[in-house]
Amino acid sequence: MTLAYDGGDFHGWQYQPSLPTVQGLVTQACERVLGTPTRVVGASRTDAGVHALGQVASLTTASSIETEQLGRALNALLPPAIRILEAREAPEGFDARRSALGKRYGYLIDRRAVADPFWRPYAHHVPHDLDARAMSEALRSVRGTHDFTSLCAAAGRDRNPTCTVRSARIVTGRGRLAIFVSADSFLHHMVRNLVGSLLEIGRGARAPQWLADVLAAKNRSLAGPTAPARGLALVRVLYPRSH
Amino acid sequence: MTLAYDGGDFHGWQYQPSLPTVQGLVTQACERVLGTPTRVVGASRTDAGVHALGQVASLTTASSIETEQLGRALNALLPPAIRILEAREAPEGFDARRSALGKRYGYLIDRRAVADPFWRPYAHHVPHDLDARAMSEALRSVRGTHDFTSLCAAAGRDRNPTCTVRSARIVTGRGRLAIFVSADSFLHHMVRNLVGSLLEIGRGARAPQWLADVLAAKNRSLAGPTAPARGLALVRVLYPRSH
Repeated sequence: MTLAYDGGDFHGWQYQPSLPTVQGLVTQACERVLGTPTRVVGASRTDAGVHALGQVASLTTASSIETEQLGRALNALLPPAIRILEAREAPEGFDARRSALGKRYGYLIDRRAVADPFWRPYAHHVPHDLDARAMSEALRSVRGTHDFTSLCAAAGRDRNPTCTVRSARIVTGRGRLAIFVSADSFLHHMVRNLVGSLLEIGRGARAPQWLADVLAAKNRSLAGPTAPARGLALVRVLYPRSH
Repeated sequence: MTLAYDGGDFHGWQYQPSLPTVQGLVTQACERVLGTPTRVVGASRTDAGVHALGQVASLTTASSIETEQLGRALNALLPPAIRILEAREAPEGFDARRSALGKRYGYLIDRRAVADPFWRPYAHHVPHDLDARAMSEALRSVRGTHDFTSLCAAAGRDRNPTCTVRSARIVTGRGRLAIFVSADSFLHHMVRNLVGSLLEIGRGARAPQWLADVLAAKNRSLAGPTAPARGLALVRVLYPRSH
């Protein structure tokens, strides 16, 4: 299933007892439609407040329900802030998380002098001038395979800190600035810490080269602050052609 | 002052005791900054849930505060869903409501099969096919000067029901459809009743000619239902060049 959600209403993707989470609500709806205990696997464990334009989730069921009908039934039960965009049968053994080749995230910044109230839930407002060219230059240093320890939340230190960033770019327009990053894997808070660091460069507090130095140091305390969750969205999950 | 607001959080523009309204909150903020009782006049009394991209409000003060500083001070006090986009000195005798030559409203429809959760607060979701061409054709009949009694909420019958519509058009794109109407004046619920009627035509329940017949009948009970507030936004208020 491909899902979109406005993360502002939820405590993230992952199930938590007695808190509204996307996985919790989707699982509950699936179990009601399918009539059996169901395990819903999400490609990305988006944090509280983070949005998704194209989260992917998988489940295994013995039910003979048509996938299209399942999607409609789930949308009828889910809150309007969570929508199943598409539901279809996957090849045997498909797992939304383990089968993924990578993910793409986008981070939206509202750079108008006065924040746009309509983008408030989906963008981080930065009222001062940002040097997009310096930010783009810095972003070049994250492309490729690196140890991203410096951009990883302390709690995420349990796994391999090496990620391969396939693309990282900045798009500007109409008072907004968006940062897109595609990688084979992401560490906890990696994009938000990257954005926080890029903003230091954008406002001129640091030179573009600083980001490469931060990465090389493998020390979280050197990077910029974690940018707010509301600007971040999981844009897409990438799978092999065959899936 | 030019203001933008996300109407979803407020009980409309107009002051109501003990309910959060835009006029109430702006007046409170002005009185705190200026230190005197202040009357804030809005160009449009937007209903509960209706948004504004360019509401205009005026006030008279003996304070020597710079208008730019006033705007910043108000934004610091107002909730983020209300933003003062611009504040400047107006000519003697200017009144945001009485000096206006007209207003432009926009109504946004999300016509994707599955509603876009990010447009949910700002668009009315219509999941079935809409014939935009038939709607455009019908819209032609509202242009010019007409008695709009048929599109006016019953409670608004106290005033002259004649309005001059300067432009009325439909813009489509990317799973959305927007209806823009400019007129010298608007009756209560006029745009939402117009949209409700256009949707009857768009889904094929009525022919385009039906709207002209409804208008000619001067009977509210003949028109379509009132479309939801969340799709409506006051786009702009028009003033003479000199203002």
